[in-house]
Amino acid sequence: MRVAFQGELGAFSQQAIQQLLGPKARPVPHERFDQVFAALGKGSVDAAAIPIENTLHGSIYANYDLLLKYDFAITAETNVRIVHNLIAPPGLTFAKVRKVYSHEVALNQCLDFFDRYKRLEREVYYDTAGSVKMVMETRPPGGAAIASELAAKIYKAHILKRGIEDDPQNYTRFFLLEPAGSKPRGARGSKSPWKTSLVFSTKNMPGALFKALSALALRDLNLVKIESRPLRGKPWEYLFYLDLLGRSDDQAVKNALAHLGELADFLRVLGSYRAAT
Amino acid sequence: MRVAFQGELGAFSQQAIQQLLGPKARPVPHERFDQVFAALGKGSVDAAAIPIENTLHGSIYANYDLLLKYDFAITAETNVRIVHNLIAPPGLTFAKVRKVYSHEVALNQCLDFFDRYKRLEREVYYDTAGSVKMVMETRPPGGAAIASELAAKIYKAHILKRGIEDDPQNYTRFFLLEPAGSKPRGARGSKSPWKTSLVFSTKNMPGALFKALSALALRDLNLVKIESRPLRGKPWEYLFYLDLLGRSDDQAVKNALAHLGELADFLRVLGSYRAAT
Repeated sequence: MRVAFQGELGAFSQQAIQQLLGPKARPVPHERFDQVFAALGKGSVDAAAIPIENTLHGSIYANYDLLLKYDFAITAETNVRIVHNLIAPPGLTFAKVRKVYSHEVALNQCLDFFDRYKRLEREVYYDTAGSVKMVMETRPPGGAAIASELAAKIYKAHILKRGIEDDPQNYTRFFLLEPAGSKPRGARGSKSPWKTSLVFSTKNMPGALFKALSALALRDLNLVKIESRPLRGKPWEYLFYLDLLGRSDDQAVKNALAHLGELADFLRVLGSYRAAT
Repeated sequence: MRVAFQGELGAFSQQAIQQLLGPKARPVPHERFDQVFAALGKGSVDAAAIPIENTLHGSIYANYDLLLKYDFAITAETNVRIVHNLIAPPGLTFAKVRKVYSHEVALNQCLDFFDRYKRLEREVYYDTAGSVKMVMETRPPGGAAIASELAAKIYKAHILKRGIEDDPQNYTRFFLLEPAGSKPRGARGSKSPWKTSLVFSTKNMPGALFKALSALALRDLNLVKIESRPLRGKPWEYLFYLDLLGRSDDQAVKNALAHLGELADFLRVLGSYRAAT
């Protein structure tokens, strides 16, 4: 099974693929998120793994927008604990490190570390795993990288410091996407509750969002996330992405969706899948 | 009056300051948003103008988080129509342009233009107005920039093509921030409706957001925006930022806030101000 992801081999997305599908799935790296979606759209991969939100950084807007642009099914989710490590080519000791390369978000999640070691210069790079690949290939003097343990292993680099992130409550949630109509995945007999993700726009009237949420609340359905995105072509109007507990086949969810359909200008179910533990 | 903003002189934020306060306000540039907030925090400026959302790009997360970290009052808002222009040093004709520098978001909002002129290379720069300053100072061969008309004027550069953005429905909403307790601004006798912005977190229970919104809906108050942000230290829980129509002194708004206070774990009013037209 070929699974598209954004970043270089060793990215946290690759770890997500392992968690979602086991070691046999073959990760296929792409430079940008739109290329990941396009690859699944034209069938050059069987699935895609995309990050959708991080507990410190927030939602990944680009992927919410791409979920709407394409018509794939979310068939599974997983949470990856983000552990940042200082990684260097063999032979480079910590005392000799001067420059640290990584993705801007990763650098910004290790501010306490940089405060403690003021000699270290931060250098923004386009990708975490890619920064390990780069320091191994080009060996910039005193150059190290911040990335996952998996990236260190793949590029045969050494971990100098483990877990240098400021806040250990750092998780990224990933979706597995497959062609529309694909069945949800998840271990047979899993006791994990179901989640359903959907997107809708409300009619532009007072109380519209409240009424939309009433379609869930009146049926005791639990809303676990809401995200708003601007509606293209209608300044200051919004699309809403919701995650609720329940499966789209459940009678209460069916009723809620029918009710929401009456209240919404537009409604699409993005998928039902087992909640990550 | 000294007003902090992020970016170089000529940034769209400077245009926002002119719209908010007229030509006499003195814009004080800062490199990053956290520096803008810090400047107002320590009183080295009288106010700050910050972008909060763009109709194509969405909310500016960093500024939502900083609104919570500091305790300032939102005293006014304005919408700036974002018009992107191709700008070059005098003497460089359009036929000779090869490289175009600008902020990544600006470059991505001119994709049709780059599709039409495939010879043009895109180069990401940290700031729109800063890219004009740079092409004027260092004159890279065939180098032009994408930025506002104001930036062209300030750095004495020429506009080669006007309005090259893909989508003219491109507006950015800005807040004016002043020390806590400052009175709202706005033309005397303005007929523009009031808006109130607030932030709250719900108790972690089913239907919590629905109940919170009921505090507004039961009083026929109109919710015009909702934004969620991760709650630090509590993975998969969220803060909600709301904008409603009404002033915090209005009886219905007072009642709604008292009701919301009962339902929320945390609640803070960020300000009441005249809605931008």
